[in-house]
Amino acid sequence: MPDIFDALEPRAALSAIARDFHARGWMMGTSGNLSVRHDADSFWITASGCPKGRLNDGDFVRVASADCAELERIDPQAKLSAESSIHCVVYQLFAAVRACLHVHTVDATRVSLRASATATSLALPPIEMLKGLDIREQHPQVELALFENLLEVPRIAAAIRQRFDAQPPRVPALLIRGHGVTVWGETLQQAYNRVEVVEFLLSYLART
Amino acid sequence: MPDIFDALEPRAALSAIARDFHARGWMMGTSGNLSVRHDADSFWITASGCPKGRLNDGDFVRVASADCAELERIDPQAKLSAESSIHCVVYQLFAAVRACLHVHTVDATRVSLRASATATSLALPPIEMLKGLDIREQHPQVELALFENLLEVPRIAAAIRQRFDAQPPRVPALLIRGHGVTVWGETLQQAYNRVEVVEFLLSYLART
Amino acid sequence: MPDIFDALEPRAALSAIARDFHARGWMMGTSGNLSVRHDADSFWITASGCPKGRLNDGDFVRVASADCAELERIDPQAKLSAESSIHCVVYQLFAAVRACLHVHTVDATRVSLRASATATSLALPPIEMLKGLDIREQHPQVELALFENLLEVPRIAAAIRQRFDAQPPRVPALLIRGHGVTVWGETLQQAYNRVEVVEFLLSYLART
Amino acid sequence: MPDIFDALEPRAALSAIARDFHARGWMMGTSGNLSVRHDADSFWITASGCPKGRLNDGDFVRVASADCAELERIDPQAKLSAESSIHCVVYQLFAAVRACLHVHTVDATRVSLRASATATSLALPPIEMLKGLDIREQHPQVELALFENLLEVPRIAAAIRQRFDAQPPRVPALLIRGHGVTVWGETLQQAYNRVEVVEFLLSYLART
Repeated sequence: MPDIFDALEPRAALSAIARDFHARGWMMGTSGNLSVRHDADSFWITASGCPKGRLNDGDFVRVASADCAELERIDPQAKLSAESSIHCVVYQLFAAVRACLHVHTVDATRVSLRASATATSLALPPIEMLKGLDIREQHPQVELALFENLLEVPRIAAAIRQRFDAQPPRVPALLIRGHGVTVWGETLQQAYNRVEVVEFLLSYLART
Repeated sequence: MPDIFDALEPRAALSAIARDFHARGWMMGTSGNLSVRHDADSFWITASGCPKGRLNDGDFVRVASADCAELERIDPQAKLSAESSIHCVVYQLFAAVRACLHVHTVDATRVSLRASATATSLALPPIEMLKGLDIREQHPQVELALFENLLEVPRIAAAIRQRFDAQPPRVPALLIRGHGVTVWGETLQQAYNRVEVVEFLLSYLART
Repeated sequence: MPDIFDALEPRAALSAIARDFHARGWMMGTSGNLSVRHDADSFWITASGCPKGRLNDGDFVRVASADCAELERIDPQAKLSAESSIHCVVYQLFAAVRACLHVHTVDATRVSLRASATATSLALPPIEMLKGLDIREQHPQVELALFENLLEVPRIAAAIRQRFDAQPPRVPALLIRGHGVTVWGETLQQAYNRVEVVEFLLSYLART
Repeated sequence: MPDIFDALEPRAALSAIARDFHARGWMMGTSGNLSVRHDADSFWITASGCPKGRLNDGDFVRVASADCAELERIDPQAKLSAESSIHCVVYQLFAAVRACLHVHTVDATRVSLRASATATSLALPPIEMLKGLDIREQHPQVELALFENLLEVPRIAAAIRQRFDAQPPRVPALLIRGHGVTVWGETLQQAYNRVEVVEFLLSYLART
């Protein structure tokens, strides 16, 4: 696997992915956040309010990953997105994860709100595309974790931590109601591939 | 936020946005109009009948914003679109607005005609994407103003002025039945971002 | 209106349009035909069986427009498409027409086959986009001519001629069942714009 | 027909097609496989797990076509996809075939799973686009072979061989449930064109 994204400087790589996802309609109106782990103690993440089709190095902020409730900006110029707390928790939960990507699509949003109001997960369709998430079974039954959308994003992050601390998810992704998916991977390329897989699965569900 | 569009000469910036929106299918068959405020007294707007995928400087006209009912062309060569009167009213109503973008999509058209015949507004879905319009609430209830489509466009412009003079809209956009959305912002980039947000919201409604 | 397509050599212009339409999914698998009038007696048209995303000058044939039932190739190397007879009739019927474009889309195909089996026309939706076909009315009621698909294409061409000879169509386009639209204009750019308009209208109908 | 793909070095041609199909959403998350016959005894095929939008020469493997059950890698560095066994059988079954392309789309997946659980084929719609598969009839009734998806891919390959040995298919393609289409042709360009045709037909069915 040619890890081209991973060979680039982190901000350049995230800008390329943002341009790609924006062109697909997955990051409309400055929505979504992309991050990559910088070292054991910090990660780079897109700043708040930047149009994703045209990011440059000033549109990122490096954030300490020690405290996800009170995020500390290492590079203080850019505006921190509240959703950085979710990325922070993903890096704390999964030591091997190097990248975390969050996008908004119409299909993912629809599927998340069509689910029963009390549902805490969504059954993924038993189709071949699941192999892209390393699910290799004849009749796979796999769930995608579903979280409530709360105005105070650190509370969403805390709910994610609590749930995944108790039981790590089988699928490297989660869905927030009305808000879209967050997907992670051990390389940027892997996280990028998995976003495509998860969006395919949700698009399938949306049209069913 | 890198205001790349705003750093360009107005006609060059609008041409770039038109090419972008045309490629998405939002400005088919010469439809739609894009404008940017030139000074306190005039704005640049796309001329009538030009294919939006390939605009050049001759495809714009500068219009005085003093009288929206009897529009005066400052640069008289290009053909004035009747819809310029709507842009004119937006600039008169909102002193801080610098850009106004109008596009036609199948989804926005469908949603506008699916609404009850007497409806004067449309409930936007309570999804995260609303934050792109600066709506930050746990259970947002926001309406998009809906106007009748009239053959005499200055009458639509007058209806917009009357309504928004009486009560400024919460959302920086409006929808005309069978005709698509008009969106504005304090910079070209902001208006561009908001078009994406409003189209996402209407696409969500269309598929529900 | 910058008639860029019309300024190009005819085959270069049609190749550019073919690449554009192919990228949108409107000319899949070598489907569709594009033509432009060469002079009073002949027109250039895409040859049969060429992938539309990568045409070159050898993929066109110049055809005499005198006899649409027994088409004569002026440049005999390339393979003549049977559908050239439809283009031939369009040029014979409308002296001012300089370009004729035929594409296949899923939406147009669906709409054409959803219509009643005896229908000979389709009501277009009364939406603003109709202005792109020069229909300017408060409550427009416009029909798109619908023809049966016959294996012997010259018989379709004859049916088109008979009907439009008796009554010229209001809309510069026609739909063949299961086969897609054919659209014409007085310039290549105008025909191109009108294809976008007609596809928008049919896409609207398909989703209603 | 300008066989541009066929004029390229096989891996370069397949990389170009993969980039094209990936951009359309047909090869998400490393899914799908593309191959071209090298000689009577071997074929080049995309390796397992490579993102299709950015393939390079190291992302292919040359496979001996003598034994499809126990595939032998001639170039052993890259990881062999289990689905290579299906390509192998296609090359064994059809001596004239030079290229085989397999993609995953949401529409093809939906259609394959909407069919009755006991169905072994799918009726293709009687539309003009069928001519792209050389079906030229007034009322065509054509079936696309449908196979069960099995975790052990060589068993799918064996089922394909058994069925097509007994009765060659009329349409140069097959569909695996929940898994997408595999299409072949006597040139790369022809296989590419046919993928577009088959996806058009399935997209039509999916929306009906």
